[in-house]
This record gives sequence, C-alpha cells and structure tokens, in this order.
Amino acid sequence: MSTKTITIKPELLGGFRDMLPGEAIMFQDMIATIRRVYESFGFVPLETPCMERWDVLTGNAKVEKSIFTARIARGIEDEKIANATWEQNYTLRFDLTVPLARVVAAYPDLPKPFKRYQIGRVWRGEKPQAGRFREFYQFDFDTIGSNSILADVEVIQVMYATMTALGIKNFLIRFNTRKLLNGLAELVNCRERASEMLRVIDKLDKIGIEGVLVEMQRQPDNEYDESALAFSAEQATAVESFLEIRGDSTQDVIAQLKEFFCGKSNVGEDGIREIEIIVATLRVLDIPEANWCFDLSVARGLDYYTGPVFETVLTDLSKLGSVFSGGRFDGLTNRFMPGSNIPGVGASVGVDRLLVGMQQLGLVTVKETLTDVLVTIFDQSDGALRNASLHCCAELRSTGIRTELYLGEDHTLRAQLAYAQRKDIPFVIIIGPDELRQKKAQLKNMSKRTQQVLTVSECVATICSLTK
Amino acid sequence: MSTKTITIKPELLGGFRDMLPGEAIMFQDMIATIRRVYESFGFVPLETPCMERWDVLTGNAKVEKSIFTARIARGIEDEKIANATWEQNYTLRFDLTVPLARVVAAYPDLPKPFKRYQIGRVWRGEKPQAGRFREFYQFDFDTIGSNSILADVEVIQVMYATMTALGIKNFLIRFNTRKLLNGLAELVNCRERASEMLRVIDKLDKIGIEGVLVEMQRQPDNEYDESALAFSAEQATAVESFLEIRGDSTQDVIAQLKEFFCGKSNVGEDGIREIEIIVATLRVLDIPEANWCFDLSVARGLDYYTGPVFETVLTDLSKLGSVFSGGRFDGLTNRFMPGSNIPGVGASVGVDRLLVGMQQLGLVTVKETLTDVLVTIFDQSDGALRNASLHCCAELRSTGIRTELYLGEDHTLRAQLAYAQRKDIPFVIIIGPDELRQKKAQLKNMSKRTQQVLTVSECVATICSLTK
Repeated sequence: MSTKTITIKPELLGGFRDMLPGEAIMFQDMIATIRRVYESFGFVPLETPCMERWDVLTGNAKVEKSIFTARIARGIEDEKIANATWEQNYTLRFDLTVPLARVVAAYPDLPKPFKRYQIGRVWRGEKPQAGRFREFYQFDFDTIGSNSILADVEVIQVMYATMTALGIKNFLIRFNTRKLLNGLAELVNCRERASEMLRVIDKLDKIGIEGVLVEMQRQPDNEYDESALAFSAEQATAVESFLEIRGDSTQDVIAQLKEFFCGKSNVGEDGIREIEIIVATLRVLDIPEANWCFDLSVARGLDYYTGPVFETVLTDLSKLGSVFSGGRFDGLTNRFMPGSNIPGVGASVGVDRLLVGMQQLGLVTVKETLTDVLVTIFDQSDGALRNASLHCCAELRSTGIRTELYLGEDHTLRAQLAYAQRKDIPFVIIIGPDELRQKKAQLKNMSKRTQQVLTVSECVATICSLTK
Repeated sequence: MSTKTITIKPELLGGFRDMLPGEAIMFQDMIATIRRVYESFGFVPLETPCMERWDVLTGNAKVEKSIFTARIARGIEDEKIANATWEQNYTLRFDLTVPLARVVAAYPDLPKPFKRYQIGRVWRGEKPQAGRFREFYQFDFDTIGSNSILADVEVIQVMYATMTALGIKNFLIRFNTRKLLNGLAELVNCRERASEMLRVIDKLDKIGIEGVLVEMQRQPDNEYDESALAFSAEQATAVESFLEIRGDSTQDVIAQLKEFFCGKSNVGEDGIREIEIIVATLRVLDIPEANWCFDLSVARGLDYYTGPVFETVLTDLSKLGSVFSGGRFDGLTNRFMPGSNIPGVGASVGVDRLLVGMQQLGLVTVKETLTDVLVTIFDQSDGALRNASLHCCAELRSTGIRTELYLGEDHTLRAQLAYAQRKDIPFVIIIGPDELRQKKAQLKNMSKRTQQVLTVSECVATICSLTK
C-alpha cells in the first residue's frame, strides 16, 4: 500500500491481546457450552453496537470508570490526528448492562419478561495489570420485567448448570441480598451512605474485619481528603457484629439475623425472607449444598444492585476471584424512562478469567487444529494423483470429516507428514500410484503410528470411529 | 446511578444498529453454518483486538478510508471530554486482513500454511447510507504461506460450500486474475498506473463500457483537478478491446486472450495459465458450471491483490452486490517485514449484507425464541404446584429440551398462554392439582391447539419428536 520502506513493529497496544488458534479453539468451545446452557433456560441472543452515545452510556453522570471515546479520523495523514473531526458522542461500551437497559427502553414492545443473553467485548481504560486487560469479553444473561424470586433462583440454577456443563466440579456460588446490607445501613442510621459502607464491606476478603473497621472510621488527614469515611465507632461496631454473624447452618445464620434485625429494619426483615425462599427452592431443586452458600459478606460493588447478589468462585483457585457474578437491579431503565423501575436480574461470566482458571486446573487443553485428516499430494506434477487427492478431500468433507489438503511449499512426503505432526492432525491420507491403481488410499494413524490401505469409505468409517 | 432526573433518549448513534433476538437468532445460525464450512477445510479460529496501533493499521501511509480512533476519558464529567487524556494510538480496525498480517509477522513460529478464520466487527467512519453501516461484521478465511494454485481453487470451493450449506441455490462465483489486468496495463504501457486503470474497470457494472472509456480519457478541468485520469485514446481503445472479449465458452475467451496477449505481456500470459488451471480443477471437482464463471471484468478494488480475485453474487438479487469476495495478496506482511513477500489468499463474507439478501429471498425466517416449551405455574401461592413445575423444568432441561419457566407478573393462566403465543413457543406444560395427583402434566401443542395429559417422560418424547 505504502511505497515507503519504514518497518513497522507488529506490536499490540498495552492491555490488549491476541487469541491464537490454540486458545481461540478452547475459548469457542467454552462459549458454545455456555450458550447452550443459557438457551436451555429460554434466554435468546441480542446484539448491540460496540459504540453508543456518551449520554446513553454514562447517564451524563460523573464517570468513575475509565472509558474509551472515539472519533473519526477522516482523510488525514500520519499523525496529524489533532485536527481530525471530533465526534464526542462515540463512546465504547464498558459493560453489556447499560446497552440492555437502552434496548428495553427503546423497544417497549419487547414481550416481558425479556430474557436475553449477550456475549461481547467491552473496554475500560484502566491501567493494564497481570490478568487485567483494557479489552475483555463479558457473557451476560438477564431477565427483565420479572419481580419473581424464582427469577433470582434461576440465576443460581444457570450458574450451577454452566459450571457443571463446563466440567467444573469444585465451585461455590455465594449469595446474599442487598436488602440485608441496606437493612444494616438503616439500622446503623446511614441509609444515604449505604453504598460507601458496602464498598468497604466488599473488601472484607482482602483486608479482613480489622481492615474494614479501620477504613470505616478513618478521619480525614486534611480538609481535601475526601476518601476518609469517618463513620462513628458505634456504626463500626454494628457492622462488626453483623459481619461476625456465623452459624453451623444457614438456618442458624438466619436465626441470628432475625434477632439482629428484629423490629429494627423492615428492609432487613424483607431480606431475610428472600434468603429463606431462595434456600428452600435450591433444596427443592436438589442443587448440591456443596456448590452454594448464603454468605453475608457478599456485597458486589456495583451501586445498581437492589436485591439478591451472586458470585461464583473456583474453590481450587481462591485467588482468581469471582468468575460469574450478578444480582438484581430494579432501576436500570430509569435513566431513559424516569420512574419506570423495570425490574431485572442476571449475571455475567468473566469468560477470559474463567478460561485462565480452567487452563490452570487442567480442565481444557490446547489444540492447534480442528482438522481430522490431512490429505497429502503424492506428486504435484502428476495430474491423476493430484486429482485423486482432490476427490478424496471432497468425499471426506461430504461426510462431515474436517479435511485439509496439503498446500505447503515443500512438496516432499516427509514435509507433509511433519506438517500433520506439528499441527497434531490425527490422520494422514496418502494416495500414491499403487493406491490409485487399487482405487484405495493409505490411512496413517499418527498417534498409533499405524497404516492401512483402505477404500475411501473405509477411511471415513475409521476416522469417524476415532474422532467423533 | 445519577440522582439527576434528566431523561436521556435511548437512541443509537447514526450508522449503528441493534440486532434484536429475532434477527440475532438467524444471524447466529448463519455464522454457525459458515464456521462449520470453514472448519471442514481446515481453517481454525483467531481472535485479535478491536483496537490496534495507528501505525500497524495504517502503515503510516495516507488514510484513504475514514477510520475511528479512540482515547481514554479518565474521570471526567459530562461533556468535558476535550481535556481528557489523548492516546492517538488507539485505532479501531477497519478490516481483519491487516490484523492478520500483524499476527503472521508477530508470531513467525506459526506453522505455514497458516489457515485461519476470523469473525469480528470492523468500523469505518463513512457516511451512513441505506444498508451501509459504520459498524459491521466481516467473516474472513485466509491461507497464509502457500503459493499453490490449489489454495486459490480452494477459495472457490469454500465459497461454493458456504452458499450451498446456507441453502442458497442461485448464486454465481465470478473470478478473474489481477495478472490479466496487470498484463493489460503492461500492454497499454501504463504499469505504474495499473491501479488507477483497475479502479475504472471496477465500475464497468455501474457505468458501462462507454462510461469507462469516458472516465479513462477525461482531461483535467483545471490545474488542481487531480481526479482526471487523462489516459490516451490508444490506451482507452486497448482497454475497450480487452473488455469486449466475449465468447460462448471459457475456452473461447481463453483463446481470444491468448491472441490478445501473445508475445506482448509475460504477466498476461501467466494470468491465462492461472485461469486455465483453476477452470480445469473446478471441472475435476464437479463444481456445477452454473455456479461459477471466469469474468474479465472482475477487478476488486483493493490495491493489495496480486493474483486471482473472486466475488459471489446472488443471481436473484443482482443489485445487492458481492456478498463474498476475496483474492490473492502477496505482500501484506511487507509493512512489518520488508521483502518478506509472504503469500496469502482468502475471502470474506459480508455477513450483514448476506443476511439481508437471505431474508429478501425468504431463505430464513424470524424466530422470536429458541425455547421449546413453556412451563406454567398453576398457582403461585401453592408450594406443591410451584415445586412440581420447577421439577418438571429441571427434568426437561436435563434431556436437552429448552425450557422456560413462566416468570411474568400476571399470574393468570390466560396471561401465561398469551406469553407463549406471543413468543411462538411451540409447547406449553400445565401442572394443576389433577395432574399433580396423577404425577402427570398437561402438554399443549400451541400450533395444533391440542392437549394431552402425559407423564413428563412422555412429554419429553412428544416434544423431541416435533422440535428436533
């Protein structure tokens, strides 16, 4: 394209990554499995653009996240971008939930409950770190327009079914409800500061109970220090006694909660009832108790949750954090339709992180190819042999066998076999003059290092019996 | 999130669009079919980021396309974007070919031939028009590192297999080779202006032979008029006689081309040999001649093509344009590795456009749901009935039946049936007190308006026999 000979480095931007075929094949398998689970519960796909209007995505509110905005560089040269057309409205999505809220508001005729799933990339401008990227996938499912607690239970069912379908055994779905935490805020008389309190509680796993209490009570260093929360000692003590609620069983914890909230907070008592129904329904559904637990410390950071919240951890990889999280939110469309209060509940798989976890646990293995068989060309200059290989490929493909014709530059048989070996293709077919005369083909099983001269239909049967 | 009550319109940016479930389900089916075809030829998936460095994507050359660049808006309020951090390097990809070239250069150990497919969105800042968007999908496959003409033939095979797998019968794969066009440029003594000539020839379908000749010879209106090509009358005449080459058969056209180029252009004669091999191989493979044709007027606009070029049109929708196009390019990695000249050949399905075409032809129909059966809840306040419905759902799902539990706000049976009707869910299950007592369920076939009282296993058998 350019006639200049300046060499450009084939580099990626920081915080972005490639998925080469070995990884992309695993990723695709994982996505297909999750999709089947979501569909088995009646969720249907939705696609929204990667870019939306600034006001739609941010609600014109203060942007706490680091987000990407885009503009069109029209007909400009080299680095003279500064003068390009600036269209501030192009904002890259940072999640799939706000676009869902826009869709619900924009198409009021969508039948409710609207159950949709969406997989897509999202972008955040945060500083890249090990395992944290500026571009990553989310794979969400949500039920919009249902107040039923069964929709909340269904989130746990979908989480359980997904993890199981992926072959993961050691996982724990932890849940709580924001109502208990809001009840706590009511009880300690800081309802308007509930989200500040929640954000500290959310750090419990990282900083421990002592850390939570210190952070809650920290006084400002100076008059500009807005990060100090300065809760009172009494408030901190109430939070402490809440977080120290323990029990041998869920029943036990619920009994203590009842005592804690008794007559002191309606929303807290509502929360207890929610948890009781969820627990009872999970038992009716026989979802193994080893895979779920009611956990008072689950807060999930996002401000918009209003009811049950969920997270899923791989018990053998506790440091990985939650791989599948969500909750109930009841005001997401209010930005577009004030007072609409359309209820929603759902969750999102952090698929990149989950794949890392599954690799670490040895639950998936890298495959460089999906090809079942490589058909060699015995002699490029011999038209009859070449055509025999071409025909053989077509016949194999027509039966659903994934078939690659050798197209490399080194035409020796050794190079052709080395190519199959390198890519871990399980079978190789060779049609030489002898095979051509017999209307047969030589089938090599690469792992067993065996070979047989067979008709093409016999080859099909052998390959199918070993690859499907 | 914001406490302000300014209502935001749930609008999209111009040139962007949603795919609601009805369309997204069709789209997903189409993608799955194309993916299976690509994989059947040994192509494997690759994923690259949506944003890349400016120099990587543009080669630091003049940008002819309108492209999007992005920056990070960090912690800014409302519309004060102007002061945000500007990181010029974030450029949104405008195709999947340049990222492929970067991958090939960045990972030299990838075994060659490297056969990859990739589906992804790309962005262009061009003015949105009917059917032309600023964000759209491409679904590419390419073979990198093979000079074999069989790799070119394989492009046609993949095109044929894809269209057939999608259930399209009336399509035509038109091909040519850039070598014939470069031979023409050599013959009319304008090799260094070959691409200008090609761009005019590419308009033949739109402006006719007369239009091509006029545009070729147009003199500048004034000294700033750079668009006038000002080819000589002799050059135009040679192009005319080239474009007028016609014949009753491919053999006939080839015979005329041999005469046209005889001894006058090596590259032209090379081109003839290429076409001869492609045609002979397509015949060996029995690809129906109704579905392909050698067509001298196919030029494909992109400068980087160096050999065979391909396009696919739906014969019943000639105005739609090509839905599947590609060609051979031999210098794409040169930007990163000067002189490497790694050969490549491939093509890209314009999936959005193809879906529009298939809808117009009635080859796909909108489905609002993938759900096979809706399980109602007879009485929300009756725990036993609710649990029976929950159990029934679990049992159906365990057999692979896509099952939705009714979660709507209106609990009447009429509303539950109306929901199934509205979403076109084929079956509804009702478990009332009678059915519960008999350990059975009432299965309603919504289209036939029939109902039977069956055990859940009998329901499974009936649903499977009619939906799979």
